[in-house]
Amino acid sequence: MSQATDAFVLQNQERFLDELKEFIRIPSVSTLPENAGDAARAAQFVAGSLKAAGMENIEIIATARHPLVYADWLHAPGKPTVLCYGHYDVQPPDPVEEWKTPPFEPTERDGNLYARGSSDDKGQLYMHIKAIETLRSVHGTLPLNLKFIVEGEEEVGGASISKYVAENPDKLKADVALVSDTALYADGMPTLCIGLRGLVYTEVEASGPSRDLHSGLYGGTAPNAIFGLIELLAKAKDASGRILIPGMCDEVAPPAPAEKASWDSLPFNPREFLEKEVGSSELTGEADCTVFERIWARPTMEVHGIAGGFTGAGAKTVIPAKATAKVSFRLVPNQTPEKVIAAWKEFVARNTPAGIRTEVRVLSAAPAVLVDPDHPAIGVAARAFAEVLGRPTVFIRSGGSIPIVGEFAKHLGIPTILLGLGLPDDGLHSPNEKFKVGNFYLGIRTVARFFAQYGA
Amino acid sequence: MSQATDAFVLQNQERFLDELKEFIRIPSVSTLPENAGDAARAAQFVAGSLKAAGMENIEIIATARHPLVYADWLHAPGKPTVLCYGHYDVQPPDPVEEWKTPPFEPTERDGNLYARGSSDDKGQLYMHIKAIETLRSVHGTLPLNLKFIVEGEEEVGGASISKYVAENPDKLKADVALVSDTALYADGMPTLCIGLRGLVYTEVEASGPSRDLHSGLYGGTAPNAIFGLIELLAKAKDASGRILIPGMCDEVAPPAPAEKASWDSLPFNPREFLEKEVGSSELTGEADCTVFERIWARPTMEVHGIAGGFTGAGAKTVIPAKATAKVSFRLVPNQTPEKVIAAWKEFVARNTPAGIRTEVRVLSAAPAVLVDPDHPAIGVAARAFAEVLGRPTVFIRSGGSIPIVGEFAKHLGIPTILLGLGLPDDGLHSPNEKFKVGNFYLGIRTVARFFAQYGA
Repeated sequence: MSQATDAFVLQNQERFLDELKEFIRIPSVSTLPENAGDAARAAQFVAGSLKAAGMENIEIIATARHPLVYADWLHAPGKPTVLCYGHYDVQPPDPVEEWKTPPFEPTERDGNLYARGSSDDKGQLYMHIKAIETLRSVHGTLPLNLKFIVEGEEEVGGASISKYVAENPDKLKADVALVSDTALYADGMPTLCIGLRGLVYTEVEASGPSRDLHSGLYGGTAPNAIFGLIELLAKAKDASGRILIPGMCDEVAPPAPAEKASWDSLPFNPREFLEKEVGSSELTGEADCTVFERIWARPTMEVHGIAGGFTGAGAKTVIPAKATAKVSFRLVPNQTPEKVIAAWKEFVARNTPAGIRTEVRVLSAAPAVLVDPDHPAIGVAARAFAEVLGRPTVFIRSGGSIPIVGEFAKHLGIPTILLGLGLPDDGLHSPNEKFKVGNFYLGIRTVARFFAQYGA
Repeated sequence: MSQATDAFVLQNQERFLDELKEFIRIPSVSTLPENAGDAARAAQFVAGSLKAAGMENIEIIATARHPLVYADWLHAPGKPTVLCYGHYDVQPPDPVEEWKTPPFEPTERDGNLYARGSSDDKGQLYMHIKAIETLRSVHGTLPLNLKFIVEGEEEVGGASISKYVAENPDKLKADVALVSDTALYADGMPTLCIGLRGLVYTEVEASGPSRDLHSGLYGGTAPNAIFGLIELLAKAKDASGRILIPGMCDEVAPPAPAEKASWDSLPFNPREFLEKEVGSSELTGEADCTVFERIWARPTMEVHGIAGGFTGAGAKTVIPAKATAKVSFRLVPNQTPEKVIAAWKEFVARNTPAGIRTEVRVLSAAPAVLVDPDHPAIGVAARAFAEVLGRPTVFIRSGGSIPIVGEFAKHLGIPTILLGLGLPDDGLHSPNEKFKVGNFYLGIRTVARFFAQYGA
């Protein structure tokens, strides 16, 4: 059976790629108001592709911003239901001048397809659609029940889908979700991501004197809002990056020994990671943790931005009245956003220096997600992936956050399979984003095989 | 004789004020390249006013940045020569939205003239010019020899005048310099400032990763340029404001017991100072020093501005590659700029966190200045001032820096009389800067009387 589907993919791969190129040519940049019409066109394209693949009950759902696309095929009674998710929106192509070929004219070079959205996420979403077309074409039917929910706001916070999932749990009910928006650990290595860190993003504002003061006339007696903020933030973590905020990390659950052992066996070149990816003079962080522990399983605190006082060219001698910092925390199992926020607010209140007032504003909050690797669907996906790529599947985590995974867990009570065929150097959000063409075909075969085996 | 000059001031005060407003309307912000043309216009205005007042040999002297204005009147052989100094440049008006009336449209309210530069220093410089016009108009001549040197870079470090004074000591030779760029200790209280703090102004740049990184994918292992800068700066002074930089404060000379005793007898209401001037919840600083010691006789460190990473609305999860802070030190007798700079650079180098690179750029450097209160010209000025305001003159220091006073001492070997008619709440460098209109007229009368008595 899988031979027949593999053969169909091989016979149709040029057409599949041509169709993907057509999808990519739509510049569906979600953050730019001038591209709103393109987002609508991309939603139409997704709806048409789903219909052509044999999906039913296609809906283009208007939202406050860019439309959602829903579809289902529910003719396999007694079989499991998979909820497929993807996003048709893309990041802006800036800086455009750094692209070797136009961002919205997909170009093949060295086995890669270069274009904005090729990997994130049009190419990967399209693997799902073509896997369904393949199965329907070869077998005349599908091996399990399928639902699709595709959004156009992933790159701008996903507000509309978040609302929709919360309001339509019965409609979206499934046994498992499938998301292809991640990367292989390394090319050729089948990879399932089973953990994501959460994120609490805040803004802290410090106020000192009621107005900017002359530092000569008042320096020595007046509180400085910037220095107050500096004093406060400096106390929140130590030189190794360990968070010192009381109560924030009490619940942190370390990875299970087996998971940690499997990370230790992943190929990893620290020098290459330092020089090619981070690009600083040395790696930093908690010395008693491996790099994978630090980025996948340890809570972090980062200051993303800071502003206050006079920052133009030259000199201005003010004691600044105000300063603001964007401060976020990455959460790991079993931290809760509520406790992290409470601990942070308490810490800020207790450590605000004399003469300074502070305010903490929470901009977003999502917990970490861990998927049980022993869940039956994960096991099937790992096996299918290993068969197609010819190597055992590895289980990794990501230090980033994919909020929709948390929404599916919270509102639908289902785990998510993060099965992505991107590569670490695809350049998501950067100029010259690419998707390896061979991985596009391997992804279609893997998804088709997963559907077949999970429905068997 | 002084009755006649006082009468002339009274008869012409509205015209004097209208002319001053015209001067103030020129937005001669020295730090902003886009205002360079305005600086040139302000220099022209000063030259024209000096000519109209009867000064001779007017020169507009081109410099690397903003022009200097020179003028003299040297027809009183055997009489002393006074070198008058002022600056026509002003601080940026930011934050503009906090001004009640436009910063460059001088507006009279409650006996004050509100505008950027009204007190610092256009209004006070203009007192000198109008004093000369008054004496010339009343007597047809001047009672002593006068030179003027006016600059347009006072708010940005004064590099051009510094070079000019060093290179032209014979041209600028005088017995004493007169600078009106300070404030009365309290309204109605004639005040001569005999001490100024110095200033070393620097910019510190911290670099971490070679580009902004995704805080999910790299958070925990990658150095954060903002946090690195925060860690570094937080170590430089303690919660009381005491500088912890080794070697920076070794030479600090405390005020003489008699001077300290005279400060203790000045009227001072700490609550009013806190609420009306500083406007914070409490005064801060070294608890074992009085407020006057802290602002006049103690070294300080301030962070004037800080910038790095993402500071727009909303959230962006970057580990920032760069962050910059403007950091200055106020110097007191007997600290030297050279030692302060060396100690700061050494401290930054030693305390730069792992994975971060730092660079210190020095933008300006000037030592503290003390003037001998027993100098004859100081005695004459104190008497003239006391006569016009009807109260004994007090001697104070200022926590600010007027680098030119140090240059005059160093290159011309002369003391400077700091005779200013500003008020402590004038809001220099802040929104809604003001100058009391009545003090503008009293200043013209005081300067005219000082010239007359010093030349007598």
